[in-house]
Amino acid sequence: MKKISEKLLEKCPWISFKINLRELSFTTWMLLGQCVSKCDHIKRIPLSPAVRKELHKVYLIKGVVATTAIEGNTLTEEQVRDILENKANIEPSKKYLEQEVRNIIEACNEIGRNIRSEKYKTVSNELICELNKNVLTNVPVEDGAIPGAYRNRQVGVGRYRAPAAQDVSHLMNGYCEWLSSFDGAGIDEIAAAIIKAIASHLYFVLIHPFDDGNGRTARLLEFMILLSSGAPSPAAHLLSNHYNATRAEYYRHLDKISKTKGDMSDFFAYAIQGLRDGLQDVIDTIIVQVQMVSWRHYVYQIFKPIENDSAKRQREILFLLSECANPLPLSEIEKLTAKYYLDKGKTQKSFTRDWNSLLKTDMIAEKDGKYSPNYSLILNQLPFSM
Amino acid sequence: MKKISEKLLEKCPWISFKINLRELSFTTWMLLGQCVSKCDHIKRIPLSPAVRKELHKVYLIKGVVATTAIEGNTLTEEQVRDILENKANIEPSKKYLEQEVRNIIEACNEIGRNIRSEKYKTVSNELICELNKNVLTNVPVEDGAIPGAYRNRQVGVGRYRAPAAQDVSHLMNGYCEWLSSFDGAGIDEIAAAIIKAIASHLYFVLIHPFDDGNGRTARLLEFMILLSSGAPSPAAHLLSNHYNATRAEYYRHLDKISKTKGDMSDFFAYAIQGLRDGLQDVIDTIIVQVQMVSWRHYVYQIFKPIENDSAKRQREILFLLSECANPLPLSEIEKLTAKYYLDKGKTQKSFTRDWNSLLKTDMIAEKDGKYSPNYSLILNQLPFSM
Repeated sequence: MKKISEKLLEKCPWISFKINLRELSFTTWMLLGQCVSKCDHIKRIPLSPAVRKELHKVYLIKGVVATTAIEGNTLTEEQVRDILENKANIEPSKKYLEQEVRNIIEACNEIGRNIRSEKYKTVSNELICELNKNVLTNVPVEDGAIPGAYRNRQVGVGRYRAPAAQDVSHLMNGYCEWLSSFDGAGIDEIAAAIIKAIASHLYFVLIHPFDDGNGRTARLLEFMILLSSGAPSPAAHLLSNHYNATRAEYYRHLDKISKTKGDMSDFFAYAIQGLRDGLQDVIDTIIVQVQMVSWRHYVYQIFKPIENDSAKRQREILFLLSECANPLPLSEIEKLTAKYYLDKGKTQKSFTRDWNSLLKTDMIAEKDGKYSPNYSLILNQLPFSM
Repeated sequence: MKKISEKLLEKCPWISFKINLRELSFTTWMLLGQCVSKCDHIKRIPLSPAVRKELHKVYLIKGVVATTAIEGNTLTEEQVRDILENKANIEPSKKYLEQEVRNIIEACNEIGRNIRSEKYKTVSNELICELNKNVLTNVPVEDGAIPGAYRNRQVGVGRYRAPAAQDVSHLMNGYCEWLSSFDGAGIDEIAAAIIKAIASHLYFVLIHPFDDGNGRTARLLEFMILLSSGAPSPAAHLLSNHYNATRAEYYRHLDKISKTKGDMSDFFAYAIQGLRDGLQDVIDTIIVQVQMVSWRHYVYQIFKPIENDSAKRQREILFLLSECANPLPLSEIEKLTAKYYLDKGKTQKSFTRDWNSLLKTDMIAEKDGKYSPNYSLILNQLPFSM
């Protein structure tokens, strides 16, 4: 890759496009390993198409809210969902916030649809300008800002003073070259993409090439880098979520980088910890679904060989109880199942008989007089019993 | 912790009980992170009790075979399974091999049963001697060896010459103290246990405290350390498997440690890579089960609202096809389902009608004229479609 000129490097030594992976602590590497493993699991855990679609939507919404909220957009996740589902009714004074959100949704979808196409294989100045133009379409911009064109005046973010306007296009050339030459030094593809996405974000906001929309453009690039490495889409939104959820830390770290002449190791530690925690959340969400499917399957297995009416009713009690978030006392379980027994033309007496049979199995767990399905039967929380 | 005397350290500097975690490469740390994440997943993926029990058994068998095979035992996994299920019929000349296997099974089960008890909280000389005695119960031992007593003569393994007999009890005191003082410097509990298990194994075989049974005793300690940190039982057997499957490398690395005066970083890299690969295998095995359960659940969901006889038959075709490992041509599918249709009093014609209806759904995937269930519907292999 062509080198950034010495003169330019002297002016802003923190934008050197040289990442020293050896600066990262072993804790950070261990967290990065966890990220790699968790991305793999998210991709391999089976989900019904409806659940998968909803999961994708939830994380798209979180991502869109995060990337716009950090710029001051105040629309909530519920409102963004309504926009996505075309049933929003946003008041006129907030229409520009809706437009901001629509721009990001459209950009994410465009990237998702075309992720395997030539368009995103190499990141060019043209592509970056197009993304910036898209995020600013039909929304009010900073005075004098031209969407999709690099800036021609001095800017700053908080205490940080970005490089001079005349250096922007040189730096952005260096940025594009760095993006296409970064190869991750032989580490796993997803791990390399995570490092690249974080560094790409940092360099971008440090150069601050546009008058407006820099953060959003940077986060779209980050999304694109992660998605094109094979990271599952919820994972590709998580860095933005983390930056938004911990804004003060985010700005503190950014500021620190220019002061330490480009030491990015603390930022990496901060970002990778957030990504790991976010991935853990995704897995927690998915695992609940998988456990519920497994539980229903197990209940069917247990009651299948019997298949008399009483067994069917016991199965139904278990399913109704499975839909409750918390253990219930017997009186609540009676209420919960009352309609089912009524519809079947059955009495309170048959419920009691069924319930007592059920209690004799190991399918019900009891604690402090409250009952829940005995999920421990299908969980591996403890070392396997010997 | 009391220090190993300077004099002793001069004689065998590679047994210093000082692990320098900073010597490990970032690749090793990343792999260790993956191990942590994978242990977590193995514990959280739900399995039916029967599958879970079988999985536990499979890895117990693999572990027992590995730990005895590396010492020259030639019984196969099938034979060890038969021993475990009390239906073995081993010829008299190999009875001692059966006894060796029984000793390890009994020791693993004893550890598993009591893992939460006081007995295994601190590793003492007494416990170590008891383990050694147990692995050597009723099997032929090296000439003059006393099971459960530290050696009183010089030994070597391959080219390696172990410390002098008179130093063994001092070194083993140091070993026990090191085991109880090692705290993992703030890294995750499972990660610390992995480091501890590997180092414990190394120190043990380098000291080589017994005349016989050192390897097996070392591997039981390693199993105990992993299990008591909360690692799932299949995971706790994997290091032994790896050492056995790659014996030449294992001995080469052991030899290298004494030559490099105790640099264990290459051994850690070798062991952790093997552990990660082993954990990936466990997950591959589990995921197949989970995917099958999810697939059956999805098929039920799709056909439930219909529930006419034709829909029930289509569901049965899907289930029969799901039990086949490979895609089948139509002619094979006809054979596969023939008995079912016959039993239902149905003709070839109704099969053809059902099959054509099924083809109109997205439940069947076709490639090169062969058909399989369309598992892609429930998999997240690719980034979520937008």
